[in-house]
Amino acid sequence: MTTIPAEQSLSFLERVHDVSVHSGPVPQPGPRQVLIEIAAVGICGSDVHYFDHGRIADFVVNAPLVLGHEASGTIRALGAEVTDRQVGQRVALEPQQTCGRCRQCLIGRYNLCPDVQFFATPPVHGAFAQYVVLDSHRAHPVPDSLSDEAAALIEPLSVGIWANKKAAVEPGDRVLVTGAGPVGLLCADVARSRGAWVAVSDTNAFRLQTAKVRGADLTVDAATGSLVDQVGEVDVVLECSGAPTAVKAAFAAAAPAARVVLVGMGAAEMELPVGLIQVRELWVTGTFRYANCYPAAIQLAASGTVDLDGLVSGRFGLDQVADALQAGRTDPKTLKPMVYPGR
Amino acid sequence: MTTIPAEQSLSFLERVHDVSVHSGPVPQPGPRQVLIEIAAVGICGSDVHYFDHGRIADFVVNAPLVLGHEASGTIRALGAEVTDRQVGQRVALEPQQTCGRCRQCLIGRYNLCPDVQFFATPPVHGAFAQYVVLDSHRAHPVPDSLSDEAAALIEPLSVGIWANKKAAVEPGDRVLVTGAGPVGLLCADVARSRGAWVAVSDTNAFRLQTAKVRGADLTVDAATGSLVDQVGEVDVVLECSGAPTAVKAAFAAAAPAARVVLVGMGAAEMELPVGLIQVRELWVTGTFRYANCYPAAIQLAASGTVDLDGLVSGRFGLDQVADALQAGRTDPKTLKPMVYPGR
Amino acid sequence: MTTIPAEQSLSFLERVHDVSVHSGPVPQPGPRQVLIEIAAVGICGSDVHYFDHGRIADFVVNAPLVLGHEASGTIRALGAEVTDRQVGQRVALEPQQTCGRCRQCLIGRYNLCPDVQFFATPPVHGAFAQYVVLDSHRAHPVPDSLSDEAAALIEPLSVGIWANKKAAVEPGDRVLVTGAGPVGLLCADVARSRGAWVAVSDTNAFRLQTAKVRGADLTVDAATGSLVDQVGEVDVVLECSGAPTAVKAAFAAAAPAARVVLVGMGAAEMELPVGLIQVRELWVTGTFRYANCYPAAIQLAASGTVDLDGLVSGRFGLDQVADALQAGRTDPKTLKPMVYPGR
Amino acid sequence: MTTIPAEQSLSFLERVHDVSVHSGPVPQPGPRQVLIEIAAVGICGSDVHYFDHGRIADFVVNAPLVLGHEASGTIRALGAEVTDRQVGQRVALEPQQTCGRCRQCLIGRYNLCPDVQFFATPPVHGAFAQYVVLDSHRAHPVPDSLSDEAAALIEPLSVGIWANKKAAVEPGDRVLVTGAGPVGLLCADVARSRGAWVAVSDTNAFRLQTAKVRGADLTVDAATGSLVDQVGEVDVVLECSGAPTAVKAAFAAAAPAARVVLVGMGAAEMELPVGLIQVRELWVTGTFRYANCYPAAIQLAASGTVDLDGLVSGRFGLDQVADALQAGRTDPKTLKPMVYPGR
Repeated sequence: MTTIPAEQSLSFLERVHDVSVHSGPVPQPGPRQVLIEIAAVGICGSDVHYFDHGRIADFVVNAPLVLGHEASGTIRALGAEVTDRQVGQRVALEPQQTCGRCRQCLIGRYNLCPDVQFFATPPVHGAFAQYVVLDSHRAHPVPDSLSDEAAALIEPLSVGIWANKKAAVEPGDRVLVTGAGPVGLLCADVARSRGAWVAVSDTNAFRLQTAKVRGADLTVDAATGSLVDQVGEVDVVLECSGAPTAVKAAFAAAAPAARVVLVGMGAAEMELPVGLIQVRELWVTGTFRYANCYPAAIQLAASGTVDLDGLVSGRFGLDQVADALQAGRTDPKTLKPMVYPGR
Repeated sequence: MTTIPAEQSLSFLERVHDVSVHSGPVPQPGPRQVLIEIAAVGICGSDVHYFDHGRIADFVVNAPLVLGHEASGTIRALGAEVTDRQVGQRVALEPQQTCGRCRQCLIGRYNLCPDVQFFATPPVHGAFAQYVVLDSHRAHPVPDSLSDEAAALIEPLSVGIWANKKAAVEPGDRVLVTGAGPVGLLCADVARSRGAWVAVSDTNAFRLQTAKVRGADLTVDAATGSLVDQVGEVDVVLECSGAPTAVKAAFAAAAPAARVVLVGMGAAEMELPVGLIQVRELWVTGTFRYANCYPAAIQLAASGTVDLDGLVSGRFGLDQVADALQAGRTDPKTLKPMVYPGR
Repeated sequence: MTTIPAEQSLSFLERVHDVSVHSGPVPQPGPRQVLIEIAAVGICGSDVHYFDHGRIADFVVNAPLVLGHEASGTIRALGAEVTDRQVGQRVALEPQQTCGRCRQCLIGRYNLCPDVQFFATPPVHGAFAQYVVLDSHRAHPVPDSLSDEAAALIEPLSVGIWANKKAAVEPGDRVLVTGAGPVGLLCADVARSRGAWVAVSDTNAFRLQTAKVRGADLTVDAATGSLVDQVGEVDVVLECSGAPTAVKAAFAAAAPAARVVLVGMGAAEMELPVGLIQVRELWVTGTFRYANCYPAAIQLAASGTVDLDGLVSGRFGLDQVADALQAGRTDPKTLKPMVYPGR
Repeated sequence: MTTIPAEQSLSFLERVHDVSVHSGPVPQPGPRQVLIEIAAVGICGSDVHYFDHGRIADFVVNAPLVLGHEASGTIRALGAEVTDRQVGQRVALEPQQTCGRCRQCLIGRYNLCPDVQFFATPPVHGAFAQYVVLDSHRAHPVPDSLSDEAAALIEPLSVGIWANKKAAVEPGDRVLVTGAGPVGLLCADVARSRGAWVAVSDTNAFRLQTAKVRGADLTVDAATGSLVDQVGEVDVVLECSGAPTAVKAAFAAAAPAARVVLVGMGAAEMELPVGLIQVRELWVTGTFRYANCYPAAIQLAASGTVDLDGLVSGRFGLDQVADALQAGRTDPKTLKPMVYPGR
């Protein structure tokens, strides 16, 4: 049996461009929580954004904050009332706590719970730590065949599943994914796993090549011409870039009754082609995290349908979080740097 | 039996602000068409727009055009293969012809048929005429209890039904209708017929009063304060004004996962709150006419659930079409001027 | 302020056909619960079934059980963590407790929670008592315009809302309700509130007359001929009788792609027309209580759209529960006997 | 250019167990039809049933009938108004003609058109012929990469797509397919193409082995124990056997809110577990052919996602139709015998 220490190390964002490791207490799980020893944590664009700007929209880092929310680990202790998990289970962390009682929770849209507490969103600490606590039902067991990295990346895969679910992607649909960062690549993978034909656009040659290797039916350089000319009309747009030019180009390619899902975060306001939305009766929506996606994500990863390990582009210790957060700045081939708090 | 003349009178839009009556042949129904003697025709905002501007978006009036598409009448002759209609039946005209073979038609979205021919949309003539032909299945029989005016206004009622269907309005939903012209009023009526609580906003006191009398649960003057402050959060927005300020105010009132349907035509491009669409996972769509709505519209009107006769605000002969088209310009109480080609 | 006594009276089903009143402690609300003083409780068919048979399917009354689950009351005390309710609020009780953590709860189908605890389902006590505790979010505030009886009958109204939601009833749909007991009548009312044309069948003349008075478009005596001959094809069947002959007759009237919802409980196995289900592509489902229906039910009742007070057919004290449970046996006009524990 | 002969050979079912080849005229395409030279035709269970019994339900073979409806071929002539197809195109035949004007057609459910004319359903002739005519939009072009056999088998693949669509199969769903004949195998393939985990049950070892090789996650011998014990709870049942024991066993494995689609034809009436349908709120429906599935089927086959060629289990000339129809009687490894009218 593993001994649980009283103290642990955590990486804090102190202020913009300043992270440092401090020690702190290992938390006690509440009655229905589990204590998890973190194995691996992926770097998300939102972590980088907090590091660079100290805020995202109305969420402001006013006090030192532990970043990181794409995490895997092993259950080390159970709260008093936990009966559905066991010590020693390897898990993917669904990094949120919701109230379970509001209208949104009761109707199954818990990601929209007004009282949601999400890892690494101020003032809630994240997973660049050796130990965290989590509601037991948010610690999703994974099979041994999944690596620590893959188990951590169940989180962004869930983002891709949610986007595809919103778009109700069907076999035979023509899907355009704009932006081939990790989320765009995973959106494309999930679309293919639903039987769709998938085109991916970006301006980064390495990312397009990666999309191609992962199975995209078509990859197009958005800089070399209009998307609709290169891709033709599509039934679904999964917009993963947040860039106004991509949004505009994607709408132009949307077939009548197409579904356009805005996944990538960008400006708070954007000029949209309202006339097209009307004449073509397009459906437009956005995604805010995900709900009820982890089981499907684990199944897609465990069956080999979606490759997660191939996204890993660098490995860092807890004292190298700053390097991990900045890896993408210098290397255009960066996809998913991983942090290992226990090494 | 009614004798069908060889010649009839039709009102043509010759050019901007210029309509005149000419005679022309009474058309022969095709094998699967019926010949209809027109009883009443409502004036739609699009008719007024063609009268004032000679175009709507890419649809340009390049040759004299018969306007009018909200029409009722009586079947006077049948094409050779028609077995589903009878001479003498009073009908509401669904004023469109679609190909029945394209992807959109086959999937049940015939309003998006790329080859649709719609009355009073250049170069297709409309119903300011004594006789028109129509595919037999688009001539929907109405009960005798429906007036000629009500039968004509099945058309805009279908617009309201379609908008509500797109929004999937459920009993108990809080619905905000922005803009209380005829389409807004009918959208509100249909929302109430689906069991929703309905608020209506406008800046025209008469229209708000009309909404109130027709049964809106709340009416608010959009000029006196923010919609969200006056109405609270809503589950559904049916935007019927096309005005950017209304659109913006309506989005601010949209609850998480709310459905926002853009019914009113306005600018081709508009700045929309993309951040809200994402964080609240709003569903945004627009409507382009309607599909498969006439039977429900006739049922709602025939059962007395929706009052159509009360919308009529003026009565005009075929030689008074210019007056009918301009009635709204001088009288803020104008809702639905009607033209009677046979009188 | 109301003083809360330490002791209260409760009516227990001791064994088949044997109920008696005993005293017991007034319960303490848990941290997120409220204490409710019961005002009125409707008699449901399931209460009668437990009284007559001591069981429903696998649910067996092995120990004295408090029946009653259609209840209203007033909040008299709050648990330590309750912030969303106030002492003195009049409420409709949604009589269930669910885990909030299982797959069904998380996806919004909490009625299917395997750990659901539902009032008056052994071994969970019901509301034939002066005081009960309930999770605060299941105590739904009602406006003063709703009577105690109406507030209690929000429960069966929710059954009707759920059935209509499963059937996705739309304006203009033709709906057939088989069985005009309280649930059938409320299913019909809700269908009309969604804009449908509604036929109701039964063999009890009083119930048919009641359906007529409440607004059914057609009422038919199921004993006098086939339903399809009398009603024609319908888009929706809401089967509320549980009788095999009614089920069979209703299927025969189902139009292509019709939705058939089995609401009334009957035999565990039944011969169904599988050939019709295939050739007409019918959708068949059943309902098990409801989820997320109380807000809509309260809105429909408060707006006057659905009349609940008119269903009340007798009033009884806590010591008259046996009479209340047997009222329907002698009087065919019995719809909803009410029990008032505080009188 | 290919010369079109005046006469052709056709295989007629004269009476039960009696087919013979006769010559007849090559038909002329109507204005919106194409003339197709048939390349390959698959044998369907319904063909065998007509051969053995002379009827299916109410469809009776009263006069010599050309069987065969799973067909591919090449367009050899165009009707006068056809602009969307070209002579020489290889096509998969969607073997039905629908009215395009009834309620079902207009709403997108053309498979339920009351006036549907379907190949090889008396009195409509099928494709065991050298030439047939078809509405141009029902002749779906296929890429050269698809073999004649695969193009013919787009038809049963469409059955599988339709069943999966009815079940709304999602990634991560657990799907049970009962019956591993050609339709069951294709249902399983499509379910996997939608990201589901798929179990297949049968009692024929060869068919189970085939399912395994095609990628089923689990195959179970239905004769060796209960399905629920062997498979666990499932979210979706695609019942492809028509056997009452399989239907019963499949229902027992249906999880709460599962969707059960009855694809296999069996008895007109069957005892179903109504109690389960209610307590678990199961959705039960059946399929009748398909609508709007060919484009997706062609995409799945062309992308290699679903293997159709591997189903071919025998090759026959037009004068060997009797042998083709009886192949399955003697060889348990028979899946899809093919007939080649032109050889």
